[in-house]
Amino acid sequence: MTSHPFDQAIALNATGEHTFTGATSPAYANMVGPYGGITAATALNAVLQHPALLGEPVSLTVNFCAAVADGPFEVQAVAARTNRSTQHWTVAITQGGETMVTATALTAVRRDTWAAVEHTMPDVPAPGSVPLPTARGRVEWLNRYEMRFIEGGFPGVWDERDQGHSRTRQWVRDQPPRPLDFASLAAMADVFSPRIWHRRARFVPLGTVSITVYFHASQALLSANGDAHVLGQAQGQAFGQGFFDHSAQIWNQSGVMLATSHQVVYFKE
Amino acid sequence: MTSHPFDQAIALNATGEHTFTGATSPAYANMVGPYGGITAATALNAVLQHPALLGEPVSLTVNFCAAVADGPFEVQAVAARTNRSTQHWTVAITQGGETMVTATALTAVRRDTWAAVEHTMPDVPAPGSVPLPTARGRVEWLNRYEMRFIEGGFPGVWDERDQGHSRTRQWVRDQPPRPLDFASLAAMADVFSPRIWHRRARFVPLGTVSITVYFHASQALLSANGDAHVLGQAQGQAFGQGFFDHSAQIWNQSGVMLATSHQVVYFKE
Repeated sequence: MTSHPFDQAIALNATGEHTFTGATSPAYANMVGPYGGITAATALNAVLQHPALLGEPVSLTVNFCAAVADGPFEVQAVAARTNRSTQHWTVAITQGGETMVTATALTAVRRDTWAAVEHTMPDVPAPGSVPLPTARGRVEWLNRYEMRFIEGGFPGVWDERDQGHSRTRQWVRDQPPRPLDFASLAAMADVFSPRIWHRRARFVPLGTVSITVYFHASQALLSANGDAHVLGQAQGQAFGQGFFDHSAQIWNQSGVMLATSHQVVYFKE
Repeated sequence: MTSHPFDQAIALNATGEHTFTGATSPAYANMVGPYGGITAATALNAVLQHPALLGEPVSLTVNFCAAVADGPFEVQAVAARTNRSTQHWTVAITQGGETMVTATALTAVRRDTWAAVEHTMPDVPAPGSVPLPTARGRVEWLNRYEMRFIEGGFPGVWDERDQGHSRTRQWVRDQPPRPLDFASLAAMADVFSPRIWHRRARFVPLGTVSITVYFHASQALLSANGDAHVLGQAQGQAFGQGFFDHSAQIWNQSGVMLATSHQVVYFKE
């Protein structure tokens, strides 16, 4: 464990073969409870710390069942199935015996094969050419990321004019900078602010209920990235009856896809 | 239960508070084991049949841990968390005590809100103007769907010429026709043949390892659809190191988004 706030926030102590304890971190506080991305990274970290782990993460789905309360929590991670080169995980985060999060993950021993990025990286200016936001984040976790918005920054005015689309393109890295790994990439997959705010320029209460991340990178590729910015893009697909989804992509600066993600979000109006 | 092969295939018998039994159906046989879509629909059906069910499906993630063997299986469905208007489910399908499938689902009581389809339906010819394939499906489950391909039909020649993209657009409905519901929509979300075959015009062994479906429709909207064709679109995002993903959308003929889906697929070469 380093002294970086990200590593402190996702740190787990093994208490049994499949059980860990952790605690929420004020550095990643959201409006209510912790930032969902840090919770997703914590769930993945239980798999990464598990002594039976086979391979590297391929997919992760995290369901937010209830707001995690500030304070300690327990994590259970079980290898439901181990095959020759793949392993399927079920994970739960509980507080006082109540389920706050359920998750599943697939890890695999990966091999070099034919490769292609079909959803190609858009042509965007380099991170150094994109200004930083001038305002400090209104919730603490926002200050743990350096975000440089090329398109679709946080809505400046809630004037309720339909923006026609909800697409965001942004450079992002940890703040302070930290070398990229699977846990931090999982957390970054949730960095996109709620698409309905962007689309409608209207503030409505909401919360992500499920996020899935597919990892297209090896640890070697993530290590090679170091703490360089990665490009994130997110756009809503459909909104209605109290829920919307978005689809997201994260590329390195060479245009290699590191992760794709999608999530479904509850909203109230 | 009707006499439709789909209903027969996903039928479950309750054996306890959270447990069911079912059996694979030859009508939905794939190369090895059953069609993944019918397995996903079966996992969802355990939630839909559960006496404690709250609301309608919003999200479903199904992880294919191992090939389901032809014959009987057990399904466990547990409400891990029940809130005022949402409910989180964990599901497992086992055979002989071995985990073949894990799944999670979110159900919710939905309400009318502001709505928009941001990923809009492409302009395509009506189902009646799109010819049916002339060949019978090479695996039995293909014959349970009427598919009319507008773009990206099943590769006709394995000439290994990179096609540049892997996008498919197709009309689809059950064969024989059957009124649309959540279970059949979940199954249809897996109807798209593997994107790597389309992209590369090269046959490689493969299997879906995880699929997620977000439901944007109410049962009322699905009922209104009846057995009319729906439009499906799927396209790969990134391929490499033995896995690729795709993103998919399903609209009704009025352009309302019924479901979005993503999956990650193992391939070997």
